Amino acid sequence: MIIITQPAVTEEQIRQIVARLEDFGLEAHVSRGDSRVTVGVSGPEELARNQPLASLPGVEAIVPLAKPYKLAAKSARRAASTVDICGVSIGSKAAVAVISGPCSVESREQILSIARLVKDSGARLLRGGAFKPRTSPYSFQGLREEGLRFLAEARNETGLPVVTEIMDARDLPLIERYADCLQIGARNMQNFSLLRDVGRSHLPVLLKRGFSATLNELVMSAEYILNEGNANVLLCERGIRTFENATRYTLDLSAVPILKAKTHLPVLVDPTHGVGLREIVPQMALAAVAAGADAIMIEVHDSPEDAKSDGRQALFPETLSKLVPRLRAVANAIGRDL
Amino acid sequence: MIIITQPAVTEEQIRQIVARLEDFGLEAHVSRGDSRVTVGVSGPEELARNQPLASLPGVEAIVPLAKPYKLAAKSARRAASTVDICGVSIGSKAAVAVISGPCSVESREQILSIARLVKDSGARLLRGGAFKPRTSPYSFQGLREEGLRFLAEARNETGLPVVTEIMDARDLPLIERYADCLQIGARNMQNFSLLRDVGRSHLPVLLKRGFSATLNELVMSAEYILNEGNANVLLCERGIRTFENATRYTLDLSAVPILKAKTHLPVLVDPTHGVGLREIVPQMALAAVAAGADAIMIEVHDSPEDAKSDGRQALFPETLSKLVPRLRAVANAIGRDL
Amino acid sequence: MIIITQPAVTEEQIRQIVARLEDFGLEAHVSRGDSRVTVGVSGPEELARNQPLASLPGVEAIVPLAKPYKLAAKSARRAASTVDICGVSIGSKAAVAVISGPCSVESREQILSIARLVKDSGARLLRGGAFKPRTSPYSFQGLREEGLRFLAEARNETGLPVVTEIMDARDLPLIERYADCLQIGARNMQNFSLLRDVGRSHLPVLLKRGFSATLNELVMSAEYILNEGNANVLLCERGIRTFENATRYTLDLSAVPILKAKTHLPVLVDPTHGVGLREIVPQMALAAVAAGADAIMIEVHDSPEDAKSDGRQALFPETLSKLVPRLRAVANAIGRDL
Amino acid sequence: MIIITQPAVTEEQIRQIVARLEDFGLEAHVSRGDSRVTVGVSGPEELARNQPLASLPGVEAIVPLAKPYKLAAKSARRAASTVDICGVSIGSKAAVAVISGPCSVESREQILSIARLVKDSGARLLRGGAFKPRTSPYSFQGLREEGLRFLAEARNETGLPVVTEIMDARDLPLIERYADCLQIGARNMQNFSLLRDVGRSHLPVLLKRGFSATLNELVMSAEYILNEGNANVLLCERGIRTFENATRYTLDLSAVPILKAKTHLPVLVDPTHGVGLREIVPQMALAAVAAGADAIMIEVHDSPEDAKSDGRQALFPETLSKLVPRLRAVANAIGRDL
Repeated sequence: MIIITQPAVTEEQIRQIVARLEDFGLEAHVSRGDSRVTVGVSGPEELARNQPLASLPGVEAIVPLAKPYKLAAKSARRAASTVDICGVSIGSKAAVAVISGPCSVESREQILSIARLVKDSGARLLRGGAFKPRTSPYSFQGLREEGLRFLAEARNETGLPVVTEIMDARDLPLIERYADCLQIGARNMQNFSLLRDVGRSHLPVLLKRGFSATLNELVMSAEYILNEGNANVLLCERGIRTFENATRYTLDLSAVPILKAKTHLPVLVDPTHGVGLREIVPQMALAAVAAGADAIMIEVHDSPEDAKSDGRQALFPETLSKLVPRLRAVANAIGRDL
Repeated sequence: MIIITQPAVTEEQIRQIVARLEDFGLEAHVSRGDSRVTVGVSGPEELARNQPLASLPGVEAIVPLAKPYKLAAKSARRAASTVDICGVSIGSKAAVAVISGPCSVESREQILSIARLVKDSGARLLRGGAFKPRTSPYSFQGLREEGLRFLAEARNETGLPVVTEIMDARDLPLIERYADCLQIGARNMQNFSLLRDVGRSHLPVLLKRGFSATLNELVMSAEYILNEGNANVLLCERGIRTFENATRYTLDLSAVPILKAKTHLPVLVDPTHGVGLREIVPQMALAAVAAGADAIMIEVHDSPEDAKSDGRQALFPETLSKLVPRLRAVANAIGRDL
Repeated sequence: MIIITQPAVTEEQIRQIVARLEDFGLEAHVSRGDSRVTVGVSGPEELARNQPLASLPGVEAIVPLAKPYKLAAKSARRAASTVDICGVSIGSKAAVAVISGPCSVESREQILSIARLVKDSGARLLRGGAFKPRTSPYSFQGLREEGLRFLAEARNETGLPVVTEIMDARDLPLIERYADCLQIGARNMQNFSLLRDVGRSHLPVLLKRGFSATLNELVMSAEYILNEGNANVLLCERGIRTFENATRYTLDLSAVPILKAKTHLPVLVDPTHGVGLREIVPQMALAAVAAGADAIMIEVHDSPEDAKSDGRQALFPETLSKLVPRLRAVANAIGRDL
Repeated sequence: MIIITQPAVTEEQIRQIVARLEDFGLEAHVSRGDSRVTVGVSGPEELARNQPLASLPGVEAIVPLAKPYKLAAKSARRAASTVDICGVSIGSKAAVAVISGPCSVESREQILSIARLVKDSGARLLRGGAFKPRTSPYSFQGLREEGLRFLAEARNETGLPVVTEIMDARDLPLIERYADCLQIGARNMQNFSLLRDVGRSHLPVLLKRGFSATLNELVMSAEYILNEGNANVLLCERGIRTFENATRYTLDLSAVPILKAKTHLPVLVDPTHGVGLREIVPQMALAAVAAGADAIMIEVHDSPEDAKSDGRQALFPETLSKLVPRLRAVANAIGRDL
């Protein structure tokens, strides 16, 4: 961190800045330039970051030099991470994985039938919600434990590991009994209590970007999980909120290369929620693979017009079946398997 | 709700739309216009809203006519609500209230000293965080129960009721022992589990707008709380995320008249978090009163350069003291007390 | 400007940075801190700003210290500017002015009739569009010269100076014959050719903020006008584009104190376009006065249901008449006249 | 268009709505449903769209059914358009084209040298700015006519057709003498005078999306050009403004399939301006091809650290050379040439 002082800073103010830094357990290194005095700060950057240095008299600007995250940072590991979900590897050295399934588990028949379609399409993981975050308290809220049981049955039949959302830390023991990967939804990306709890789970965590979270904030939320000891975190871009209303959200594919430059964690893309329109999900999935995503999450429903949630955005099963080979062709074109 | 069909809709498709509506327990009323067939839907609108009608073949557009919220809706009550927090009334028929205090409770001395300043300024409620939602796991996370005890002590001395944030439903019994009003922070506005839990508390709930939540979503989150039986909900605008970076967020003051048109609930404004710059908090507080806010929430700190969080935005105590009479003058100018 | 180097910067890279700065006619002052080398840059900041310094090997960050604008900057003048429009003064030392009129001039009768209402309400300037920027080529595009003549007639009858929009520099001589103040609309805020042309006009220029322009960009656009010699520039906040759709745009009232801190120019607010909803224009106008705006621009129409553009947002004349005294009360409450 | 009335609409209000529609030359078709009366409107939709129908007493909602654009609409042509720029075809039936060159023409040597690199890389058009829209009046504004001459010389030597920006209609005759395709920059997307002027040019027009324009607004701006008789319009996504600041803008790749569904016009993507970071331009270019873009516009500079504008985002020549074959591989993977 470097502190740049105002042109009119006094010697007394500089003394106070240095004294304050030393109070905080930091070292200060004063450099006198032609027109400005700068104070280099050494010591733990997070220590300095938490202090109200910008409020000190005589300070013009603070230039942070270290990243606010450490465990998630690219520099924290020699190589990119690979997360294993019951035998399916996800990461930049592994094949691109397709994760698919319905928005919500609606019945035993529905999830079994869709799981078979997902398996046949070439997708490698099954997603489905048993606890649903819904804007309205009057909307379908999920089948809860019953939904988890149906998901586990679908996994047992198809062999596809199951990803499902957790909304409340008190449900963790229950979900851990049935699922293979926990999903933190966009609306809970900064539910810091929940992040700490899943950080103590043995299951991998698929962390979705909040729809108005910056990429730095997403990485900081991953840091909460990593800091509790759970090293298996996957980051997932799922669209951000902008003024454009032709799509439900704006899918920010630049998140893929940016996150891969910042962190060692696998990066996923969910084009379904990102755009909310079935018609353009295939193009956005292809684009996500080309941008370097390590896995693609796609909603599918065998009769979208009966879906209890988000029917407008789920792919028809035949669209998914035709899409997977095209995703593979693009993956191959950039030198990856799928 | 009115369903508008595509120009090329077939009789068979219309029959299917009607049949589907009837399956859902709704009544369908077909009107044949010159170029389009429309289907009026009667029955519980929320029932219809949850169905994937837009996915049915032959449907062009769905026009919702009822509001998605009922308990929060203006029409649900004859008059605007007033929420009482230990004797301080907040609502459009009450005097405008000022709520002030530090971002975080940092020590016993700090909160007692600030509480006295707040009391002297003419503010009527004390705010202070004991559980802090922080982007980084390495930042100060609050004094927790100790902070709550200091807050209660400050209330006992000054008589100011205490507003404090809850981040985890498991802390509810603890917080209920010490506080007079629960705050749900912006990051938890769509933490639906937590909303349900505070909906069962006997304490009033100050619900902050998520920084990328629409006003409709804010009202829907209030609906979660009301639906559990807690009628004492206050809505709070605190800035939304936009491209502008001169301020930390963009304070959306149009939220005040819009929320007052949609709902019967009191509407508050937090200019401190909305702009994040101490220098312009007074002007934005004055503007919020002029726009019709029922209460204004302002951070103050007796030595902002020592604050453990958000020192850059807290007012100096003397600025608060001078501001309150100016807020009163503006309140009087629009016909209200403060 | 201060250049902060990477931790691994080499002496050779520092030599190249210094040499490059000297090539540019700038002076370099190297300071060696404990962990970083910083290079202070002196000489014309705009010279440095235009150079691709961030691309030089070994550079970690560039910290600009001077503002990118000079003529608009607060520091450029001893006191806040007052702009005179045919005898009506606008600025922080003058009374708050109300500018009102229809969106478009539609007929001689319409503009004369509205101008009288505007005059009677206590507003002091008349607005009306003769050249209309419309999203669709098939929408009403304005009466052009005929509209200007009607505006001039309305001014002659009522004595209200006229503000009207210019969209094309080739219309400048024509508009200068009829109008008293040129308006640059939001969509042309970065039409730099047009800015230069109105910078050479003898008329004052009311410059509206683009709906996704930062406040810095707004000031930079004012700088284009000032730099051509026209010192009479008024800045106008009129709403920015965000994800919220309850209002047409989000009126960013923090623009008022921020612009007043950055520049010496008068700051106006247009709540009509900012929210696009007649029902809440009064509250937002009151809030704008409380925030410190030097003038308020409000659309009015004597029969909004006949308006050729934007009928949904214009106030009814009786609403305007009742609003002006309330605006005055708020102005008085913060110590200003209106 | 369908007008939906309020529940409490009176017969007199319905009569007035119908009368008003007939005044406008439209036909009204009243349908009485169980709870609501709807009025179907037939006749030219644009006629209805321009009328302030929402302001009529008794109206609850207006549901537009026709698109606001006609010449640009997919339905206006049997097949997707192909635009020919001096022998290079751009459109969904043509090979994907790469357009490359520097941000600004800086000297004769610079543009000739870069043009040769561009040619060798496999790109098929040359871009370069002679008139530069710059936020600051103190930044380099382009070489103007001299720059155009250097571009023409580069075209003559390499055979690459030249795309260059026009900022002022008065420069059109000059630019037409030298260039092969006119570019309208993002800041001028709603400079309607300029759109009309280029609509009368014989040159194709590359129209960039404003950084806060909706896709509908982009198509409406194309409609201005088409409506003047110029059928050769290319649409270009170049990033929108959002809260995210890791990239300069957020590249909205969903624009590609959405625009292709709405219009018959070719769709281009400019990843360079979209993200503003050289490091991730290749991934975003690959993603744009996978999403279905008809051409990709990429800035290149032979010594970015000397660039007079935007040096931080231009690719190094060797990166471009390696990128083009990868773009071709992705194009082939989705069944297209490049």
